[in-house]
Amino acid sequence: MARQSRTLEAELLEFAHELADAAGRAILPWFRRRMSVDNKSCDGGYDPVTAADRAAERAVRKLVASRYPHHGFEGEEFGRDREQADWRWIVDPIDGTRSFVLGMPIWGSLIGLARDGVPVLGIMDQPYTSERFWAASKGGAYFRGADGRRRRLATRQCPRLPDAMMMTTHPDLFAPGPEQKGFLRVKNEVRACRYGGDCYSYCLLAAGHVDVIVEAGLKPYDIAALVPIIERAGGVVSTWDGEPAMRGGRIVASGDPRLHDKVLAVLGGRA
Amino acid sequence: MARQSRTLEAELLEFAHELADAAGRAILPWFRRRMSVDNKSCDGGYDPVTAADRAAERAVRKLVASRYPHHGFEGEEFGRDREQADWRWIVDPIDGTRSFVLGMPIWGSLIGLARDGVPVLGIMDQPYTSERFWAASKGGAYFRGADGRRRRLATRQCPRLPDAMMMTTHPDLFAPGPEQKGFLRVKNEVRACRYGGDCYSYCLLAAGHVDVIVEAGLKPYDIAALVPIIERAGGVVSTWDGEPAMRGGRIVASGDPRLHDKVLAVLGGRA
Repeated sequence: MARQSRTLEAELLEFAHELADAAGRAILPWFRRRMSVDNKSCDGGYDPVTAADRAAERAVRKLVASRYPHHGFEGEEFGRDREQADWRWIVDPIDGTRSFVLGMPIWGSLIGLARDGVPVLGIMDQPYTSERFWAASKGGAYFRGADGRRRRLATRQCPRLPDAMMMTTHPDLFAPGPEQKGFLRVKNEVRACRYGGDCYSYCLLAAGHVDVIVEAGLKPYDIAALVPIIERAGGVVSTWDGEPAMRGGRIVASGDPRLHDKVLAVLGGRA
Repeated sequence: MARQSRTLEAELLEFAHELADAAGRAILPWFRRRMSVDNKSCDGGYDPVTAADRAAERAVRKLVASRYPHHGFEGEEFGRDREQADWRWIVDPIDGTRSFVLGMPIWGSLIGLARDGVPVLGIMDQPYTSERFWAASKGGAYFRGADGRRRRLATRQCPRLPDAMMMTTHPDLFAPGPEQKGFLRVKNEVRACRYGGDCYSYCLLAAGHVDVIVEAGLKPYDIAALVPIIERAGGVVSTWDGEPAMRGGRIVASGDPRLHDKVLAVLGGRA
């Protein structure tokens, strides 16, 4: 039984890599695409993100429907299929659309799979830099870069807030009031805070370069694929209230579990 | 005479590419380097940026001294040599050190050359993504990516602030008071403002993906190499007062010259 489940997990992970490949193939032709002369004004008549997002989600959705027709699917662009299914794919073809639009290579395709609401595997793929981060519920979290070598991911130790390098996608993520105040309390205690990054930041946390990420307003497809990567690398990710991160909302991730408790306390005004 | 100067410029540009290669070779082993167990705490005892910065500047400085011993040199780490020289190399081995520390691939090595204070050529090299942006004072601005193909850079048209995509490295660059207010006036008029990027943002402006960049507190070596890239791609870069950007300080770059005048007016409180 254990052996069978390992085999199934390996099969699903292999399939998830195929999905990430398909997403990258659909997106890359649109990245840094110059507008035609007719559309050259920057408020132009077409939106490369939307085109790329949709092309990738269509490709991934079609592959899932053909290979695992009983699996559910949740994507950013076209909503949910088979919501009652035990197994559910959760996909954001381009997480970090603002980076994408600006030509910054720090967006990614997120491919997640959950069973009964619990994350089973996750992939973050950056096709322009040929970088991929992934993990399944058993085994480690891994990275493969342009050199093609697979390396194991591990978060770094950092138990204290004054030593922590923090990231968040944008200071305007936080609603004025308690949410913004919570973020600012943490920001004022860390060593440094850098903006920009989206899914890429969470992967750098898994790789041991970033210590804490505080965000708000995330959708399930913004975080589901990242949960296994962070956790299997030794980190912790939850809502600001310490609940599972899978449903999105206010999210905090820490490379060092000891740091996580402190960040939650500061966010909640208890420290 | 014109022919001779073209030949000299070609020779200097070829040499500048060699300098960028040398900088990348010196830096890359330090990028995303995991700390040893002894140094694993994030306030650890060694600083990979400093090590990489110094190794790269030493390598570049040595090549210049050997090939053009009469040329001046200004670097971030080791100061100025031969300040009275007509020709002066202006080098920042790692522009975007915070990105470097966090593992973000949006830092770059800046290699600039000025003659009598006027920019002659500039290179921005990102060795991790194998991207290089460059220009000389004659001819176009160019980009070469991981596929090895050379492409001409051109800024995009965007004459109006409400259509402009803006970037700045960090909102805390600006001193509270008139400087911060000037930045906020522009930020409030543009379509969107994204943080993070350093030299990488200026290159994306040259490539037609970003419309305006507003920064402050830049050093000459933060901007000198970028001036030819921006200008030869069709953009404009100056201080907030419209003076040449070569000396650093408060810098604004625009892809569309018509936009530049408007940004200067808003920064100066005249619009």
